[in-house]
Amino acid sequence: MMKSFIEVDQESDFPIQNLPYGVFTTETQSTKHIGVAIGEYVLDITLLEAKGFLTEALNGAQNIFNQGVLNPFLALKNDVWHQVRKTLQSLLSIDNDTIQSDSSLKEEVLIPRSIITNHVPISIGDYTDFYASKNHATHVGTMFRGKDNALMPNWTSLPVGYHGRASSIVMSGTDVRRPLGQTKPKEVEQPIFGPSKQLDFEYEMGFIMGYGNQLQSPINVNEAKNHVFGMVIVNDWSARDIQAWEYQPLGPFLAKNFATSISPWVVTLEALETFKTEGPTQIPEPFDYLKDTSTKNSYNLTLETYLQPDNEKEVQIAQTNYNSTYWSIAQMVAHHTITGCNLKTGDLLATGTISGKNQNERGSLMEITWRGENPIRVNNVKRSWLEDGDTLTLKAYAQGENYRIGFGEVVGKILPAHQNI
Amino acid sequence: MMKSFIEVDQESDFPIQNLPYGVFTTETQSTKHIGVAIGEYVLDITLLEAKGFLTEALNGAQNIFNQGVLNPFLALKNDVWHQVRKTLQSLLSIDNDTIQSDSSLKEEVLIPRSIITNHVPISIGDYTDFYASKNHATHVGTMFRGKDNALMPNWTSLPVGYHGRASSIVMSGTDVRRPLGQTKPKEVEQPIFGPSKQLDFEYEMGFIMGYGNQLQSPINVNEAKNHVFGMVIVNDWSARDIQAWEYQPLGPFLAKNFATSISPWVVTLEALETFKTEGPTQIPEPFDYLKDTSTKNSYNLTLETYLQPDNEKEVQIAQTNYNSTYWSIAQMVAHHTITGCNLKTGDLLATGTISGKNQNERGSLMEITWRGENPIRVNNVKRSWLEDGDTLTLKAYAQGENYRIGFGEVVGKILPAHQNI
Repeated sequence: MMKSFIEVDQESDFPIQNLPYGVFTTETQSTKHIGVAIGEYVLDITLLEAKGFLTEALNGAQNIFNQGVLNPFLALKNDVWHQVRKTLQSLLSIDNDTIQSDSSLKEEVLIPRSIITNHVPISIGDYTDFYASKNHATHVGTMFRGKDNALMPNWTSLPVGYHGRASSIVMSGTDVRRPLGQTKPKEVEQPIFGPSKQLDFEYEMGFIMGYGNQLQSPINVNEAKNHVFGMVIVNDWSARDIQAWEYQPLGPFLAKNFATSISPWVVTLEALETFKTEGPTQIPEPFDYLKDTSTKNSYNLTLETYLQPDNEKEVQIAQTNYNSTYWSIAQMVAHHTITGCNLKTGDLLATGTISGKNQNERGSLMEITWRGENPIRVNNVKRSWLEDGDTLTLKAYAQGENYRIGFGEVVGKILPAHQNI
Repeated sequence: MMKSFIEVDQESDFPIQNLPYGVFTTETQSTKHIGVAIGEYVLDITLLEAKGFLTEALNGAQNIFNQGVLNPFLALKNDVWHQVRKTLQSLLSIDNDTIQSDSSLKEEVLIPRSIITNHVPISIGDYTDFYASKNHATHVGTMFRGKDNALMPNWTSLPVGYHGRASSIVMSGTDVRRPLGQTKPKEVEQPIFGPSKQLDFEYEMGFIMGYGNQLQSPINVNEAKNHVFGMVIVNDWSARDIQAWEYQPLGPFLAKNFATSISPWVVTLEALETFKTEGPTQIPEPFDYLKDTSTKNSYNLTLETYLQPDNEKEVQIAQTNYNSTYWSIAQMVAHHTITGCNLKTGDLLATGTISGKNQNERGSLMEITWRGENPIRVNNVKRSWLEDGDTLTLKAYAQGENYRIGFGEVVGKILPAHQNI
């Protein structure tokens, strides 16, 4: 097994097998640098490029890691991603002396993660959110239309999706302010205005587009994964009461435009290659343009949700597996572009809420508490929805033998709403 | 009345009172320059800035017009927009000799519009599309839910909107390829895959954000217009059959992601100031956060639609006025940000289809032909929906006394679908 000269705990998210990409600053370095996480450190690849260590791997491309975002790297193709990864793994290997034995270089390019600040690592053009978990769609549909009409007729024919708001995508750790908006509780005749009373999280995984396609040139489903660079955890914060009043007929808008949080480190699909697995059986058989011939088109990823009310201890409230997601990323890409729509480098495609069947496998409070009907106990308090001061944390990882490909976490704390303005 | 030394026809869209901003190249100048349209010319303000003519107006800001997009200028505030406009009007005035009497300067900075190629003039981060015309919402609602339930209960309480696709916003003149996708005609049990058979246009006006707001800081409705730089015509091409099958429950996605065309010249709100007018009466009275105290919160703009089938003459098929739009731009901005959502410089906010009541006042073929039930005659042919080879042109202008503030036009020709892939 590959091993680094840096000590990495077996339970660490960031062994040499992972090397996810992020963007960071420190107190003494205000320029955004790009790095990969390794154990308790980040390896500064902005410096490595400047020092010429990546020249060969980048195959002639220049100024790739000094732009403060990953986009220039993402726009290069898979073989460059692969060569850079191989070079970084080699530089970090216990068998390689280049950094290991050069204490001043080592100190310069390996920075403790405890002193860095992460930033949104990509310039995100468009953000698309799907509705790809059958359990989630079934739960929501059952609540709103009853068990017999839970899934819309189109659901098993196509990956339902919609355009999300890109400007309000924020880095893990950003506080989330409870939104103001219009709602119409059942017991009143007219809508009212005020703070949302049904603030929720949504556990999703997000795919970052590597290189895109030209307008009017759809991406074939069997080519689609080559266009995808990597994955992050996404918390698509949602105000359910605002959503219920506003969403007909054009879909969610204000209910989800106030914040979407992502995890700091982009885990590459290459690092997840070992953890590919089958997704759910698809019945009816998809149309040809959605027929993904690879048998392993999902990933074996453990997804965990933790809730910490103010002044309470953190409690795990849910756990599920990514491989329950019905539609594959290849199918989402193929569907998105079949009309000729162009995807661009850095676009974010998220799965929508990922839920298992059981109560403790669900990716939103709406499903866990069944719209507040069955509040959950979190230590000394009950929760139907998120309350001010609550901190919500999502974690994800693929478990290998003696190592783990982890995503770190995406965290957000709820701030009280502004006074009515 | 202000007059330029450049001859401008009374019916020209671009008198000295207008000066809309665009981005252009020519055969000999491949770098994108910024300019304002004046009569049959464009005044190159990238060159004017470089030559120092705008130094005072820009009040210390530098490298504003040499970035190939309007965003750096938009990010400055209203007083700078105003000073630059005044300076340009002065330089073009018949009373000013600076350019008029310097034949080499004149030749350098005044380029015939006949030799330029226009480009999308802004870097658009997010594109939001509203549903702000009551006539349009009523027509569509009547078709799908009957006359008595035409408007959704939320419609008169808030400006319904959704997130659109920014990547596929294209410049007027770009051909539009008929999209492939899933549809489910009434007469079949299962959905089918193939070219859309109900391709449509949507006549909308789009507002370009000047400077935005920080996340968690809503824009007050009475401040909102200060944040808006100008307007363009928008054609939000739509595949109605794809939309009907896909849009439940998250709204339109593929039905509108293949192309959205905009007109080349951004007409400033300042140029339209004289043409402010009242919009429709709003009943019920809006919530405070949507209460726009200005009485003139709409614009008196004539909107015209022309259709030209292949090998036929162009025919005007509709004409309406912008002032029929129910929700004002100030209300759309206030609503969009009330949750704390951040708008950014260069974001596009479109109105949704603008329709009058009568058949020849409607902004989509769906409404004009009532879903194809009443095809219209265009010279020698009939049309229910757009057919391959059709060219659709939208024009808009405000009519003053002896001059016109025009938007130019947005044109698109329909190409046949790709063979099934």
